[in-house]
Amino acid sequence: MFDLILSNALLRGRRVDIAVRGAVFAAVEPAGALAHAEAHARRDCSRFLLRPPFYNTHTHQAMTLLRGIDDDCALMDWLTREIWPREARLTPDAVHAGTRLAILEGLRSGCVAFNDMYFHQPAVIRAAVEMGVRARVGLMFMDQVSDHIENDAALALRDALPPTVGLSLAPHALYTTTPDLLRRVAAQADALGLPLHIHAAETLAETAIAKERFGFDSPIAYLDACGILRPGAVLAHCCHATEADLALIADRGCFVAHCPQSNQKLASGVFPWAKAAAAGVRITVGTDGAASNNGLSMIAEAKAAALSAKLGAGTPDALRFADLDRAVTETAAEALGFPNAGRIAPGADADFILVDLDTPAFAGGGDPDANFVYAADSACVDTVACAGRLLLEGRRLLVADEAALLADARAASETLRAPSPKP
Amino acid sequence: MFDLILSNALLRGRRVDIAVRGAVFAAVEPAGALAHAEAHARRDCSRFLLRPPFYNTHTHQAMTLLRGIDDDCALMDWLTREIWPREARLTPDAVHAGTRLAILEGLRSGCVAFNDMYFHQPAVIRAAVEMGVRARVGLMFMDQVSDHIENDAALALRDALPPTVGLSLAPHALYTTTPDLLRRVAAQADALGLPLHIHAAETLAETAIAKERFGFDSPIAYLDACGILRPGAVLAHCCHATEADLALIADRGCFVAHCPQSNQKLASGVFPWAKAAAAGVRITVGTDGAASNNGLSMIAEAKAAALSAKLGAGTPDALRFADLDRAVTETAAEALGFPNAGRIAPGADADFILVDLDTPAFAGGGDPDANFVYAADSACVDTVACAGRLLLEGRRLLVADEAALLADARAASETLRAPSPKP
Repeated sequence: MFDLILSNALLRGRRVDIAVRGAVFAAVEPAGALAHAEAHARRDCSRFLLRPPFYNTHTHQAMTLLRGIDDDCALMDWLTREIWPREARLTPDAVHAGTRLAILEGLRSGCVAFNDMYFHQPAVIRAAVEMGVRARVGLMFMDQVSDHIENDAALALRDALPPTVGLSLAPHALYTTTPDLLRRVAAQADALGLPLHIHAAETLAETAIAKERFGFDSPIAYLDACGILRPGAVLAHCCHATEADLALIADRGCFVAHCPQSNQKLASGVFPWAKAAAAGVRITVGTDGAASNNGLSMIAEAKAAALSAKLGAGTPDALRFADLDRAVTETAAEALGFPNAGRIAPGADADFILVDLDTPAFAGGGDPDANFVYAADSACVDTVACAGRLLLEGRRLLVADEAALLADARAASETLRAPSPKP
Repeated sequence: MFDLILSNALLRGRRVDIAVRGAVFAAVEPAGALAHAEAHARRDCSRFLLRPPFYNTHTHQAMTLLRGIDDDCALMDWLTREIWPREARLTPDAVHAGTRLAILEGLRSGCVAFNDMYFHQPAVIRAAVEMGVRARVGLMFMDQVSDHIENDAALALRDALPPTVGLSLAPHALYTTTPDLLRRVAAQADALGLPLHIHAAETLAETAIAKERFGFDSPIAYLDACGILRPGAVLAHCCHATEADLALIADRGCFVAHCPQSNQKLASGVFPWAKAAAAGVRITVGTDGAASNNGLSMIAEAKAAALSAKLGAGTPDALRFADLDRAVTETAAEALGFPNAGRIAPGADADFILVDLDTPAFAGGGDPDANFVYAADSACVDTVACAGRLLLEGRRLLVADEAALLADARAASETLRAPSPKP
C-alpha cells in the first residue's frame, strides 16, 4: 500500500507514474504501470510537469521584513547605516514571522529548503518545523556579539530536531571576525560535527581587507589558513575568487552558494561559474536575503544564474541547462546536508513539485524543464511536497493560514520600519 | 456618469479613487472623493496597488513558437542555423497563434503594448486588435527578402487601424541590409510619416562589420550616416554604444530599447544604462523574442534592467527605482507612439493594472511599487486594462478563450519544431 500515487506526470521528457511511501519515493515507473496499485491517495498528473524542487543554499530568511530599505545603496554603507541598527531591534517573534513569510515565498517558487544565517535561531527552527520545509540553520559568529544571537539555545535544540532540520556554524565574514574567532569556530565544527557556512569573496572591499588587515592575497586563502575551508562548507558569493582560489575550494570539498541577483543589485561582482565548474567546484544557487535581492523566487534566481554565467564567460554555451538544473536541485540538496534528496528516483527522499503545463510558458513548445526555469514564474507552481508531505496543493498553502501569516509579517515589519537611530 | 470607478486603490503611496470614461481617466481623486459619483461599474480596490502597465519596446512576439531551440548557442550561429530556416516555414496562422500567446504572457505580467519586428505582419495586427492591446508593428526590411514579409499587405491596413495600433519601418540590422536599402527605408519613413525600429550595436560582431564592411568606427555612426537615427526611432540593444554614440543617439532624439535578459543569454554585452542616462538618452526596456530570453514577463525584464545597470556601473546607486519605473511606463509608451499613455492622471489614456497586495512580496513592508518590480511576479497581477477596456480581471483573460489560445499555439509550434533542414 502506497501513501500517494501521481499518475502520468511528465518527468524529464517521459510520462511516469510515481508512488510515495512515508518520506521517500517507493516507485518511479512508466505511465500506466501503477494504474492498479493501491494507495491512500491518487492524483492524475497529466497536465503537470514533475520535478525535484529547488534548495536555496544561502539566505537570511527573516530579512523579508527589511525588504526595500535603501534599495540603491552600496553593501558596507547599507549594512552599517540601514540594516544592522534595525536588526538590533529584532525579536524572536519578528524573526519567526519574517522567516515564515520567506518560507511561503520559497514554496510558491517551488523551493523546499533553505540554508539560513540569521539571528534568534530558535525562532527560525520553529518556523521551518511548523511549515514542513528542510532547513540548515546557522549559529552566527561575529566579533560584536549581539544578544539576538542565540547560538546556545539553538544548539540545545539539536537532539530534538526532525531529520529535515539541521544546524551549521556560521561565522559571518572575514570583515566581522578575528582570525582567532574563525579558528575557534573551526575547532568547534570538529568538536560538534557541524558544517560551516560563511560569506566569502563577495566584494572587492573584502579582498582589500584580506590583504591589508590579514596579509593574504585573497579572502579564500585567508579563510583556508583559518581552517574554514573544509569538506561541506558552504561559501556564499565567491564573486572575486581567483583561479587559484577556485582550485582550493574544489580541493577542500566546499560548496559555493552563488547569489547572482544580490551580487548584481549590490554591484558586488560576478561569480565566475564557468571557471569554477572547470575547476571542479560544486556550485549551487541561493537568493541571499530579501533585502538585497529583493525577491526569494528560486525560479528567478536559477535563471539569473544561467544568464550571469553566459554573459560572464562571454559565450552562451558557458552553462548548459542540464548543469544548471543539477546545481539547483541535487547538488544544492547535498550542500544542505540532504544527500538523499534533490532527485526523483526510487528510495530518494520524496521532495517534488508539480508545475502546471497549461500555462503560457509551455504552450509554444520546447523542453518543459528549461521553460520552467527560463520562461515561467511562481504562477505555474501548483503543488510542492517535502519528505512525502504536501505543503502546497492547487496553489493553496496547506501548512499555515496564509492570511494570518501575511498579517503577522506585516505587523512585525512595522516595528522595524522606523528610521534607523542616528549612530 | 463614469464607466468605471476604482475606489481606495494604492497609487504611488496614497489611497485614491479613480474614474474612467471611455478610453481615458476622467478623475483621480483622494480616496472617498468619488464615493457618491455615478458609474456603470465600481470596484473596491482596497487590496490593490494601482499602477500604469508596462510597455514592451522590443520584441518578436511570435517567437514564442521557437522558445528554447538551442538555448546555449551564440547569436549568429543560432540565427543562421536554427532560427532562420524555421522562420522560413512560418505561416500567417502560426504567427497569429504565436503572437496571441506572447500577448497573453505580456498581459499576465502587466504589459499592454509591444513594439514588434516580425513576419506576416497582418497576422500580428489581427492578434493585437483581437486582444485589445497596443502595438506598433514593424514592416521588415532585409536584403534577403522573404515571401513571409508582408509589408505591402500591412501598409494597406494602415487607414483601418484602431488608435491602439500603429506601424513602423523596421530594417532588421546593419548586417542584413545594404547602405542603399537603409537609405531607401529612411526616405520611405519621411514619405509615409512612419517611425523606425532597428537592431543596433547588439554584439561586438556588429561593431566589426561596421568597420570592415562599411568603414565606420561604430554601428551607430554608420546607421546615422544612412539616415536611420531620427527622432523617435527605436534602437534595440545598444550594448556596444560608445559615449560618442550615446551623445549622438540623444541628440537625434532616438529611444533605446534595452533588452537585458536577451543580451545576457546570448552573451552579447551590457547596455551602459548610467552613461546613456547621463547623456540624455531616452531609455526603455524590451523583452526581445521568447527564443532568446526566454520569458516575456516585463516584471522580470524591468528587474533585470535595474540589476544590470547597477552591476554594469559598479555601484548600486547607478539607477534609482523611480527612474527605472518611468523608463518602463511613461517613456516606453512614448517610444511606442502613445504619448498620452503610461501614467495615471486625469485626461491620460486609461491603461492600468491592479496588483494584489495580499501576496508575499508585499507583506514585509517597503515601497509597494518597488516590491512589485523587484520581488513579485505574474502571480500577483490581478487586473489589466488598456484604453479603458478590461483585458484581464481576477487573473481571468477576458479577451480570448485561454484554453483555445494555448491549444492553437501548441499546434502551431509543432509544425516548426522539426529539425532544421540541412543548408
